[in-house]
Amino acid sequence: MKKATMIKLMDKLLEGECFIVTSHCNPDGDSIGSLTGLCMALRRLKKKAFVVMDDAVPANLEFLMRLSGASVLEGALPEKYSLIALDCGDAKRLCCSEAVKEGAESIINIDHHVSNDCFGDVNYVDKEASSTSEIVYYILKQISKEKKTELVDSAIASCLYTGLITDTGNFMYSNAGADSFKMACEIMKIGIDKDSIVKNLFQSNSYSRMKLLGDALETLSLHGDSIASIELTQEMFQRHGVDSNSTEGIIDYARDIENVEIAVLFKEKSKDDIKVSLRSKEYADVNAIAQKFGGGGHVRAAGCTISDTIENAKLLVIAELKKALKL
Amino acid sequence: MKKATMIKLMDKLLEGECFIVTSHCNPDGDSIGSLTGLCMALRRLKKKAFVVMDDAVPANLEFLMRLSGASVLEGALPEKYSLIALDCGDAKRLCCSEAVKEGAESIINIDHHVSNDCFGDVNYVDKEASSTSEIVYYILKQISKEKKTELVDSAIASCLYTGLITDTGNFMYSNAGADSFKMACEIMKIGIDKDSIVKNLFQSNSYSRMKLLGDALETLSLHGDSIASIELTQEMFQRHGVDSNSTEGIIDYARDIENVEIAVLFKEKSKDDIKVSLRSKEYADVNAIAQKFGGGGHVRAAGCTISDTIENAKLLVIAELKKALKL
Repeated sequence: MKKATMIKLMDKLLEGECFIVTSHCNPDGDSIGSLTGLCMALRRLKKKAFVVMDDAVPANLEFLMRLSGASVLEGALPEKYSLIALDCGDAKRLCCSEAVKEGAESIINIDHHVSNDCFGDVNYVDKEASSTSEIVYYILKQISKEKKTELVDSAIASCLYTGLITDTGNFMYSNAGADSFKMACEIMKIGIDKDSIVKNLFQSNSYSRMKLLGDALETLSLHGDSIASIELTQEMFQRHGVDSNSTEGIIDYARDIENVEIAVLFKEKSKDDIKVSLRSKEYADVNAIAQKFGGGGHVRAAGCTISDTIENAKLLVIAELKKALKL
Repeated sequence: MKKATMIKLMDKLLEGECFIVTSHCNPDGDSIGSLTGLCMALRRLKKKAFVVMDDAVPANLEFLMRLSGASVLEGALPEKYSLIALDCGDAKRLCCSEAVKEGAESIINIDHHVSNDCFGDVNYVDKEASSTSEIVYYILKQISKEKKTELVDSAIASCLYTGLITDTGNFMYSNAGADSFKMACEIMKIGIDKDSIVKNLFQSNSYSRMKLLGDALETLSLHGDSIASIELTQEMFQRHGVDSNSTEGIIDYARDIENVEIAVLFKEKSKDDIKVSLRSKEYADVNAIAQKFGGGGHVRAAGCTISDTIENAKLLVIAELKKALKL
């Protein structure tokens, strides 16, 4: 990132007095991690900082809300505030009402998505960063240096570590680079309860989610050697009483099969509204494929929505995947 | 570790001319990773270095043998050599013949197991280290400093990174600390093909094993809040063409459910021969339970065999589990 952009962002954060922090709809570990971490740091800098998230925080991330004591805005909007959009490539995906966006004096866009369209008044979009939590960590380090203090304590570090490990698949994905490990090393020295974070994220599955995974694997299919698909229908969500947002990680079971290059998950949000998630292992650019259907994301992880039945969505997308892999 | 021990070890490695490197029986990622990494570094220091491993290298680690070009000793033993024992807590578990041990001028024992009994002439046992690969990495860094060269290149780094991530469950276990992440950060800067290593280790599941997992999860049941069971039948193994020994890890799906204390897996070896595996999470002694059925193991992982149908085995064992948990 250019130094000038960092300075502009720091000025904006240090000058402001009141902030509303939000992220993308269907929040994940990186959105909640970066949001809670930044909120705490802003409050430590004597700023007013509120969370606005219209979607529910996933159960396995609630510990971050408790840990950070992040204040969710209740009642009227503050008179003057800047809106900080974290981990969100597109203003339309922000998890807050139009009123919150329109009421903001300025929008500060902090993100790492390749597809980010720089919708903010200040845009700090580092496409090389593993996660928005990693960006926030290095911003806070810079502010700490400037203010000759140490902003990142154990609680903030726990939030940002959670974001880092969820977005990098616990350092497994290619986006985990030297800076990610440097951050993890420094966070270990600050001291966090890593075991408890890991237990919350990876070892406290709900029974119903495991039953849903079973159903998902029953639909697992290969298309040629190198494409694997999984389907999740409304009927499955209802049968197991699982929120259709709690499907994180399921697509990995398709991607992690030998010789599979692209994994695709078809999720029925409703009868004619299919959320398609795409992952690639080594070379395929799934962002380019998602863009053909009006979506986007990263080279190795992207998504789109198709307004059709799940059967038709499958036909459309798998044909496109085969074309991309020249099958 | 004490500086004196490090200096003694370095002297031993730098003075020696010929080494045989070995590790424990049933080698894992850390043993093969540290062994190939150290072997390459010794050869770079103009030493003769050979691998002796009487057990086969697991298929998913063969890439390290290719990458390192580690020479497996063929034919007669060298006249003079030191034996380097890596990642092995006990001389009896070394994966080489008595002749190899007896012929050695000295034994250099490099390990991180708490139980290591210091069987070597030189013992570098760091119980705080995540893995033997991490120890070898920091030794090589020290030698590099002394010799004003950079021993750890991309190939050596790949071997040691493999050891690091297999022994830390890809940084998930509590043994992954600041030094582990520091090593990973430095290795990223040296430059390795992390994606390819991850793919070899974690992302090459077979399709049929995933289908078996799906069937297994369909049988997942709770008995009260704190007992979860999974069943695997001969019919499933046959339908998916999976060896009934390839069920490693499946029981974890039952154990990693919130509130579950004991997980049990019933595996049909034949119609009247049921292998029962037991895992506990925090307090239950499953060894004691397995012993009631003529089996045994450890407090958190044990097993037994029941000569009856899977239905009867379930009735018997789950009744006993409920009794143990006072349900």
